Amino acid sequence: MKTNNTKTVRIPLYEEMAVKVAGLVDEGTFKPGDKVPSIRELSRQFQVSVNTVKMAYGFLEDRRVIEAKPQSGYYVCAKLPDVPNEPDISEPDFNPSEISSGELVHRIMSDVVNSEQIQFGAAIPAPELIPTDKLNRMLYSEVRRFRNESTGYSMPPGNKRLRTQIAKRMMKAGCTLSPDDIVITTGASEAVFLALRSICSPGDTLAIGSPIYFNFVEMIKELGLKVLEIPSSPKTGMSIDALRFALEKNKVHACMVISNFNNPLGCSMPDENKEELVKLLESYEIPLIEDDINGDLSFKDERPSVAKAWDKTGNVLLCSSFSKTIAPGYRIGWIAPGKYKKKVIRQKLVTNIATASPPQLAIAEFLVSGGYEHHLRSLRKIYAKNVAQMSEAVGSCFPGGTRVTRPSGGFTLWVELPENIDGLILYGRALKEGIAIAPGVIFSATGKFKNCIRLNAGFWSETNRWAIEALGRIANELNASGGPAGSPDFKNPDK
Amino acid sequence: MKTNNTKTVRIPLYEEMAVKVAGLVDEGTFKPGDKVPSIRELSRQFQVSVNTVKMAYGFLEDRRVIEAKPQSGYYVCAKLPDVPNEPDISEPDFNPSEISSGELVHRIMSDVVNSEQIQFGAAIPAPELIPTDKLNRMLYSEVRRFRNESTGYSMPPGNKRLRTQIAKRMMKAGCTLSPDDIVITTGASEAVFLALRSICSPGDTLAIGSPIYFNFVEMIKELGLKVLEIPSSPKTGMSIDALRFALEKNKVHACMVISNFNNPLGCSMPDENKEELVKLLESYEIPLIEDDINGDLSFKDERPSVAKAWDKTGNVLLCSSFSKTIAPGYRIGWIAPGKYKKKVIRQKLVTNIATASPPQLAIAEFLVSGGYEHHLRSLRKIYAKNVAQMSEAVGSCFPGGTRVTRPSGGFTLWVELPENIDGLILYGRALKEGIAIAPGVIFSATGKFKNCIRLNAGFWSETNRWAIEALGRIANELNASGGPAGSPDFKNPDK
Repeated sequence: MKTNNTKTVRIPLYEEMAVKVAGLVDEGTFKPGDKVPSIRELSRQFQVSVNTVKMAYGFLEDRRVIEAKPQSGYYVCAKLPDVPNEPDISEPDFNPSEISSGELVHRIMSDVVNSEQIQFGAAIPAPELIPTDKLNRMLYSEVRRFRNESTGYSMPPGNKRLRTQIAKRMMKAGCTLSPDDIVITTGASEAVFLALRSICSPGDTLAIGSPIYFNFVEMIKELGLKVLEIPSSPKTGMSIDALRFALEKNKVHACMVISNFNNPLGCSMPDENKEELVKLLESYEIPLIEDDINGDLSFKDERPSVAKAWDKTGNVLLCSSFSKTIAPGYRIGWIAPGKYKKKVIRQKLVTNIATASPPQLAIAEFLVSGGYEHHLRSLRKIYAKNVAQMSEAVGSCFPGGTRVTRPSGGFTLWVELPENIDGLILYGRALKEGIAIAPGVIFSATGKFKNCIRLNAGFWSETNRWAIEALGRIANELNASGGPAGSPDFKNPDK
Repeated sequence: MKTNNTKTVRIPLYEEMAVKVAGLVDEGTFKPGDKVPSIRELSRQFQVSVNTVKMAYGFLEDRRVIEAKPQSGYYVCAKLPDVPNEPDISEPDFNPSEISSGELVHRIMSDVVNSEQIQFGAAIPAPELIPTDKLNRMLYSEVRRFRNESTGYSMPPGNKRLRTQIAKRMMKAGCTLSPDDIVITTGASEAVFLALRSICSPGDTLAIGSPIYFNFVEMIKELGLKVLEIPSSPKTGMSIDALRFALEKNKVHACMVISNFNNPLGCSMPDENKEELVKLLESYEIPLIEDDINGDLSFKDERPSVAKAWDKTGNVLLCSSFSKTIAPGYRIGWIAPGKYKKKVIRQKLVTNIATASPPQLAIAEFLVSGGYEHHLRSLRKIYAKNVAQMSEAVGSCFPGGTRVTRPSGGFTLWVELPENIDGLILYGRALKEGIAIAPGVIFSATGKFKNCIRLNAGFWSETNRWAIEALGRIANELNASGGPAGSPDFKNPDK
């Protein structure tokens, strides 16, 4: 095809090129996650200079239609014209408030393991994305290789080989750790639990990025802590200005944040915010619990830094696990507790003495020789694609005014519905149709985010498309009915 | 050999017979754990009636020189003439007291995993008694058989097949449980931790049998509980009379007891005491946490009942694990929390969500087809023999006035030294010679049992004999020096 290449054209040539490519994306020739033709190919095909195509792709990159992956080429982004806007920065109150207890989350957490439901509720990786056979083979080779270690206690801090691998990997997150800086835990939840038990007492006030993973809300509740919910932007995470304001006004004992590919928001804090956060908390001598569980699941090739990279005094307790990347059922997490290491080990001993030995051996070997990097690359690609597809579906099925996050990693979508739609009612109605979602209210300690829901976007299929359509239909019905109705029946769970 | 069989002999013939057999035991012809000749053999050998031999063996049984094992014959008991007397019932104070914190136990718990030391400290099974190869093979076969389960969450209450096996087994303990009454935990320590977190709040008072396993003391401390230490007899466990008295005088929120083959005392509560305990606590509406971790390790063929067998209202939270019988490093424990099940599951979720899946699959299969009963029979025999041998060695090496328990199961020995010997100083001196023991003071929340130590008697070798001789030598030196010396250097551990 020959194109008009004269100076009389009003829009620049590269923009014209870009519009053509965007048109192919709109028509569905290229779907989210697909590779688009290389610069050289397109230059040949359209008979334009390489430079023009580069400018066209730059134009499309700026508008998040496509994105570059180093050494790989250009891919269609999740962001598509009909994806709704992002939610505003959340604006919770600034007064510490006792968290009221409730059965709701217990019920929701039970729902999320019901295999008869479509699992948009829990943020668990789909079984087909878990390297089950390889991992289980390594489990067996390792328990044979380390006979006595396999059945004996792996006393805290835990398996040395595993800790060495974790320390090595964290260099990619800008963090210089020695194996002795790390304590193995039974999942990242236990890491956070031990951190909170080590640095807080009942009645203490904890500042948290809000919204936050619902099991952390429950943990905080059960530990008798008060919370200060610090607003978080769906683009840059916890607001440092809001935190500073909160620290000036309140006595805060600890701060907790999910720094990268935040659950539920999907965003990461920019490096400068991480640095500022660490310095701010250090100046108040307030310890920071940092959760980086999704850190390895960047949609880009490089993983982001952790806030702990800027920690000079051991004030940051960094928590993570392999539940999102290798296998949740192996229950291997870890904490780099800084100067609180002794306290964390003490809490580990009184909680359950040690983490199971065989899974530690297997995960260590998987990190050494299981092709973890390769596995991550394919996982990232799949999650990027699936998140894009679910975003698209939400955009086309949900009521006007719905807003959805633009995750840059992980596999959760945070959906803000029109204000008159109650996420809890949507949850109850969806459950009756066999679809589990996570209502927004459980991501707050104080009943916020009533009109929000979180979706697990880690897997995608025709069934999922049907389920998103069903959710959209229910949301549209609730929207049309003109406001929150009476108590949904799940507010009175069976005893 | 022909014996005098006339009526003019002053002592009865059977007693004469008994003295002869006891002589053979004294001389070492029959060692603890050895089988003695059958009744028929002895009748033939001594040319006396079968009935006379029966009476002689009955006489020796009463005096615990030999013991009968059904369908097997008679064996030499642990109890030998030169084994010291049992300690008196412990007599702790009756006032609740805040537990002071300390680094001591942390250090001791770290010592006990030092492979360069002789391990009389931790009550861990010797590696050669763990069915490592069979268990690890089952681990592999099961993760292949249950692919998705092996890597996915095993959400509370945990693996159904494992819970079914546990429920079946507990019928032998007089306990009718359904699989749904059981929640899988990461070891028995976690079971007790979750129980305490479910029923107690910081500041609450807990009545405990005293002495008690040191990690429970630390747990209680870390949970901010006050304790009432109820005296325990080294023969019948926690004194019900003392508990009744304590309940009359104090506001108690919960009670905790190690009912069978108590760690450290080695004794079990008689059935009538268990029944009385359950009824007494029920009348006060005080929940009972029962630890039965050693219940399967009876030196007799039958395991004892659990107190929960008398629980009609769900007031007893029964805790156990397979750490002492199969493999500690698999970290598979469980709790039957009665009416507190919802609370316990909630605590489990916020602590670490779930217990690792592969070990649950493997232990379940080991219970189904691994020959667990056969394994237990051989374990019991070995422990009975090893405990007897260590008792003997302690009796012959330790200072006069030393008293030692007569365990009827499990594999710990509780040694009460002369009052002027400080168990902590003995601990420090022994450590320098490469021998780890557990000083008595860590089995109390209030600094009792200063002149006691606990020994892991689960394994026996010539090295162990040397180590007991070395301990005896140190104890004799401390005894001769005439009283507790100044602070031992381990009271100032490194920071």
